Amino acid sequence: MTQMQTLTFVAPAEIETRSFQIIGDELAARGIKVDPETEPVVKRVIHTTADFEYAETLRFSEGVVPQSVLALRDGCHVVTDTSMVAAGINKRVLGRFGGQVHTFVADADVAAEAKTRGITRSAVAMERAAALPEPPIYAIGNAPTALVQLADLVQAGKAPMPRLVIGVPVGFVNVVESKELIMGLGCPYIVAVGRKGGSNVAASIVNALLYLASDGARD
Amino acid sequence: MTQMQTLTFVAPAEIETRSFQIIGDELAARGIKVDPETEPVVKRVIHTTADFEYAETLRFSEGVVPQSVLALRDGCHVVTDTSMVAAGINKRVLGRFGGQVHTFVADADVAAEAKTRGITRSAVAMERAAALPEPPIYAIGNAPTALVQLADLVQAGKAPMPRLVIGVPVGFVNVVESKELIMGLGCPYIVAVGRKGGSNVAASIVNALLYLASDGARD
Repeated sequence: MTQMQTLTFVAPAEIETRSFQIIGDELAARGIKVDPETEPVVKRVIHTTADFEYAETLRFSEGVVPQSVLALRDGCHVVTDTSMVAAGINKRVLGRFGGQVHTFVADADVAAEAKTRGITRSAVAMERAAALPEPPIYAIGNAPTALVQLADLVQAGKAPMPRLVIGVPVGFVNVVESKELIMGLGCPYIVAVGRKGGSNVAASIVNALLYLASDGARD
Repeated sequence: MTQMQTLTFVAPAEIETRSFQIIGDELAARGIKVDPETEPVVKRVIHTTADFEYAETLRFSEGVVPQSVLALRDGCHVVTDTSMVAAGINKRVLGRFGGQVHTFVADADVAAEAKTRGITRSAVAMERAAALPEPPIYAIGNAPTALVQLADLVQAGKAPMPRLVIGVPVGFVNVVESKELIMGLGCPYIVAVGRKGGSNVAASIVNALLYLASDGARD
């Protein structure tokens, strides 16, 4: 007899279904109404963090969820600011549509170029993203600097308008301001205002959009 | 003139120093006292999540921080439940001590064996971890099942007592119970009680311990 037997075995798919039910019930109990269009994203972020604060801090530009679903079905690529965001994205589903994940900041030649030019790796990485054949989706879960550099390139006409910016860096310095900057850029955005966010939040937003695009398929 | 210029440029290393100062000040302002021994871990988790709740939910077994620092300096390996936790760990510092990260659940042959035997990939992955030459550190940020299976193997005498279990899965089903189970196992643990946790939290705890082990060096 082990303590394990005190825990009811619940299959992973069933855990997710139950979890989403609990999240829906608790949102209702807290009197929080979520727009049906953005609900799958909000719920998946809460599922990933167990933090209901996101129901009140996530901001969506007009029509961003259906627009992003179309972009993903179009094979739109995704640029992330860290390997952790990339690791969390369902690359099978993204790949089915023709999309790929790029984390330029982790590339050895980006580090080398940054050193030669005396600028940050993050700045070089954003230039690489701007040079992709089609404007990508940006999923930024860590570095406010990445959002600031992206905004600067777009405003200077050196990068095309992104298909979507997921702006959810986390932290205490420059984070709040970097999110305000992105919301003023004129591009489609999903932003968690305030200090909170993270790689897990960025990846979960991408996945929520992917599962809408794939009608729920995970493979 | 771009909006970027409204944001003061702060170098990444300086951002971290300032962030830790802000976290310390806010903990003090909230009247939260943190044990100096566990403080570097608590602060790094708050730095990663911007969530001060962790100052009250993180639980540490007696002496676990110095014990884990010694284990890492000894070249102890780290087993993670997801690729996202693995992606977030500073593998350069871990490698300097001789440690490696294993994410058995992501291995193709683990999936094949699970299929053949009709059990979960997570169960096979835990058996692989139990068969490592030395007991590892487990960093579990996602799957309560992984904690349950680990506890079961240890209690059945099929796995040696872990050097440390970082038990921070997140979610709504079986998560709270799986953490209680680990705290009753008799092994060194760092656990975030309640529903919250995540891959980012698991990785940040490993990194906090690594930076203590390396006296702050990141490379």
